This record gives sequence, structure tokens and C-alpha cells, in this order.
Amino acid sequence: MKKVAVILSGCGVFDGAEVHEAVLSLLAIRQHGAAYQCFAPDKVQLHVIDHLTGNEDNSQSRNVLVESARIARGEIKPVSELNVEEFDALIVPGGFGAAKNLCTFANDGADSKVDEDVAVACKKFADSKKPAGYACIAPALAASIYGNQVKLTIGTDEATAEGINALGAKHVNCPVEEIIIDSDAKLVTTPAYMLAQDILEAHKGINKMVQTVLGMA
Amino acid sequence: MKKVAVILSGCGVFDGAEVHEAVLSLLAIRQHGAAYQCFAPDKVQLHVIDHLTGNEDNSQSRNVLVESARIARGEIKPVSELNVEEFDALIVPGGFGAAKNLCTFANDGADSKVDEDVAVACKKFADSKKPAGYACIAPALAASIYGNQVKLTIGTDEATAEGINALGAKHVNCPVEEIIIDSDAKLVTTPAYMLAQDILEAHKGINKMVQTVLGMA
Repeated sequence: MKKVAVILSGCGVFDGAEVHEAVLSLLAIRQHGAAYQCFAPDKVQLHVIDHLTGNEDNSQSRNVLVESARIARGEIKPVSELNVEEFDALIVPGGFGAAKNLCTFANDGADSKVDEDVAVACKKFADSKKPAGYACIAPALAASIYGNQVKLTIGTDEATAEGINALGAKHVNCPVEEIIIDSDAKLVTTPAYMLAQDILEAHKGINKMVQTVLGMA
Repeated sequence: MKKVAVILSGCGVFDGAEVHEAVLSLLAIRQHGAAYQCFAPDKVQLHVIDHLTGNEDNSQSRNVLVESARIARGEIKPVSELNVEEFDALIVPGGFGAAKNLCTFANDGADSKVDEDVAVACKKFADSKKPAGYACIAPALAASIYGNQVKLTIGTDEATAEGINALGAKHVNCPVEEIIIDSDAKLVTTPAYMLAQDILEAHKGINKMVQTVLGMA
């Protein structure tokens, strides 16, 4: 059975991993016959957003690994322990956490810095030509990892696409239910909730992304 | 298009709504052609569990509605605003939150008390014979709502089943991918993660539960 590493970035679209995208990724991995192990950085997340009001809650701080464990039902490890040799593929769901906790794209745009442990793991997948799927805003992280004019998508948002191109990638517009494949890099991306109006739309793109990644593994 | 009210109980299996069950319920509702609106009680949750360690974190408190908003992407209302006349069916995913925040079954067993706003809403669905689906441990809440020897399941756990029977229901053992239907009450239940070893197993039971509930609506 193929094994997939999944890197989460918290729990909740505005400050962590997008919950639907994360769960739909896990479902698709299992439905296509593979197994998964979740990982996340063991560090304080950028901030906490009240998901009811959309406002920042300065009264508390939360840890990315501990919150990601809510999605993983406790079955999760620090990304520093991700041994790429044990896995056939990588999946990175979106949510602002991917651009706030895995890298700093949300604040720094073209000057985005990648979390050190995340960078080590993701680059090993890239360097060893193991396939990877990045959804939603997570391709902004992939731009920093792959550079080299790698083809990817975050949907159709021009400002975000410009920021991603400034990181060395080549953004391609893509409808919500589709994927963009860079065959050389073995990188697959899909817009998910960068465009999705609905869980059905996110589901279709993510399912196609996961299926394609597993087909390359 | 049929409309389904979904009552969440936080965000995370150990102190809130089980994240996979909640997302899989939303997916199934949309896949079977209906729309949903999420609700949750606007109150402090019983406690916060660190989902990495499983330990209680006494240093903080969280609000059930605010945390449930993480699953609902902010699109959620207080359960006190649930107007049953606007909906065709009810779905209540599991997770310990259903037995800690929607009612007190986790602590009080046969003396379980139901949250007042949750009780009003759920009883209206029952009294107006609108179909409802309760997953995982949420049937412990259904036992208090329906009583009257209503047929339901939480899987096969004997101690939990005894507590539920003491609340006036009639527990029936059920495998993870199946459902128990009480046709008179229009109540459908499935074990989900009370038995599921895997998101695939939870998915099958929840999908069948949602499909059956919508078929009765």
C-alpha cells in the first residue's frame, strides 16, 4: 500500500488548515487505496482568528501541531520527524495556515519564507521526484520549494498569482474542479476553496489531485 | 432543494464535534442534492482537550459556537436561532462534544441533561416528524429527545448502550457501515467513530445515514 505524508497547518480556514480540504484529502487518499500519516510544525501559530467574527483574538495563542491534531484525531507527528524515505507522496491541503504557519506568504508575498522543518521535508519530496499535491493557497508554499518556473495554480486571483510568480513559479489559471500538473516536477495543484463556492466543488478538485498524485507514485 | 440543519458541538473529537464526521455529513448532504445550514450552542464548552496528548488544558476556555465555526467556515448560527419550520431534516454528527456540550451524557450517563436550546430544536424535529440522523455518540442525545423506546445505535459498546437504554431508548447493536432506522420516529443512527477504524468506514455509515434521512424528508 502506498503511503502519503499529509502536512497540516492548524485547524480552521482563517488561521490553520482548511478543515474540509484536509478531511477530503484524507478521504481521497484512503478511497484510492493508499494510507496516510499526518504531520504539522510544532510551533505557535501566527495568530488565532475567531472564525465566527473573522477578528483576531489576541487573548490566546495556539500551537500548530496541537490544533492540527484535532483534524488528525490525535494521530499526528511533528513535521521535523517526517522521514521522506518512508513515503511515496506528499499532500498539503490549503487554508490560510499554509500561508501563515508553513510559510509567510500571507504577510510577506514575494518575500515569503518557508518554515525550516517544512522546507526540509517538502524539498526532499521535490528532490527525490516523489509526487506532491498542494491545494488552495498551499501552492504559494510550493512556489518557494520548487521555483524553477514550476507550473502550478491557485485558481484565478491575479494579485496572488503575481506574488507566486515573483517566487519563481509559473502560475496557470485553472477552474475549481480541475488540476494543473507539472510532469517534470511531479507537482499537482488545484484551486479548492480559492475558488470553490461549495464543498462539492472543493471535493472534485481535491479528489482529482489526490488520484493524480497517487497515479504518479 | 431540501434543507438540512446540522448541529455541531465544537471542533475536535475529544471536546467537540468529530471533524471527519462533521465534514463527511456536509459532503453527503450536498452529494445527495440538499443544502445545509450549521448551528451550535453559543456557550462555553465543557472543557478543552489537547488533542495531541489527550490531556485536559485548564489554562483556557473555548466557545462551542466559535469553535464549530472552524468546521463551518464561519457560516454558522446559534442553535437558539434554529427555526425548524425552515428545514426538512436534522443531522447531528458525533464526537465527545455531542455528549459534553449538547447534553451531559459523558459525565452524567443515565442522568444526562440536554442543553436547553438544543432540546427545543431537536424536540421540534421529533414532534413534527421531520427525519433526523444522529451519528457516533450523538444517539445518546437522541435517547433523551425521543425516549419512548426509540430504536437507535451507538455500535456495540455495552456500557454506553446500557446508559442509553436507561434514558428510555432501545439500543440495537449495529456494524460500522450500517444504520438503524426507527421508521415511526423517523430517526436514523450510525456508529461512525464509535466503531470506525478508519475514515472510509465512518464515511460509508454516515453517507448511508444522510441518504436515508433525505429519503424520508
